[in-house]
Amino acid sequence: MSRYAPPLARLIKELARFPGIGEKTAARLANFILHESAEDARRLAESILEVKEKIRLCRVCFNLSEGDVCPVCSDPDRDGTVICVVEDPDALIALEESGTYRGLYHVLHGVLSPLDGVGPEKIRVRELIERVRGGAVKEVILATNPSVQGEATAVFLMRSLAEKTVRVSRIATGVPVGGDLKYADRMTLAKALEGRRVM
Amino acid sequence: MSRYAPPLARLIKELARFPGIGEKTAARLANFILHESAEDARRLAESILEVKEKIRLCRVCFNLSEGDVCPVCSDPDRDGTVICVVEDPDALIALEESGTYRGLYHVLHGVLSPLDGVGPEKIRVRELIERVRGGAVKEVILATNPSVQGEATAVFLMRSLAEKTVRVSRIATGVPVGGDLKYADRMTLAKALEGRRVM
Repeated sequence: MSRYAPPLARLIKELARFPGIGEKTAARLANFILHESAEDARRLAESILEVKEKIRLCRVCFNLSEGDVCPVCSDPDRDGTVICVVEDPDALIALEESGTYRGLYHVLHGVLSPLDGVGPEKIRVRELIERVRGGAVKEVILATNPSVQGEATAVFLMRSLAEKTVRVSRIATGVPVGGDLKYADRMTLAKALEGRRVM
Repeated sequence: MSRYAPPLARLIKELARFPGIGEKTAARLANFILHESAEDARRLAESILEVKEKIRLCRVCFNLSEGDVCPVCSDPDRDGTVICVVEDPDALIALEESGTYRGLYHVLHGVLSPLDGVGPEKIRVRELIERVRGGAVKEVILATNPSVQGEATAVFLMRSLAEKTVRVSRIATGVPVGGDLKYADRMTLAKALEGRRVM
């Protein structure tokens, strides 16, 4: 590091803090910044500051939002009777990009993980139950990941919502479209068999 | 992209301009920035601006430098009679990190590449010849990469310096230390044989 001119060394150090970015890649990125126009560099720096300043959580669903309420929640064409519960904003974006869901969301911002000290009070469970208590909701789709913690969270939410007059469903687990059974792991195959549907 | 809140979408777009960073990685990096402290984000943004503002080329060797003359050129302990010619500042850093070279450098900032319209006037050839003409230099080590263009540039520089009373040498090409002959390509093996030295 000490071979670099100090401002460059500082930038490399800052970039190397990114997950998955080692010192070599950081040096390559820093070099790119060094050679791009001052205008481009300024825009990058500004958008870093802007994102910290302007992005907040939607008051309703806790999606990332520029305003008080996110575009999904403020869209009058969305079906307010269905809430799809996801772990994080990326899952929400993936579902939105699939283009098949027209209801609302609820972003937990985490999953239950007792070993890491993450209990229901650390994720947006209380807020979900309050939304459901509101009365307009008819179905809650649990779309946490099909991982150990995602499943545990789904089971917990299902129980928490059991006394409410709302349908609680879980997304299907199975062999992905375009996937090949010979490359699917045993758990996925077991789930695919278990979740089979009459044609 | 449109699924992201606008400031986040802008940051992702800026980050995706980096070489080797696609949209998914850019989204991951943007997410990291979103979740780090405002202080950390500010430091990153500032170091981007700082690098554009403060880094310039050393007046002597064209290495990246914070001041007018780079630390190598201003170090009185370096041997001013040897100049090692490299393609770019990264090559200089790699050589410095090897810890075996005590002379000065000359950074060309490119290699001859007629197909891309890069002739001698586009890289720092004239400045090298002027440095050599100064008289203090006894040896010029050509350390451009052992690629087609690096070799062509080395041959060109060798000819340009031929009339000067200076020794012109070329770094060795061969099997890298720790390398295995069975994985070395034919060209490298040919060069390693050609460059063999009596033990």
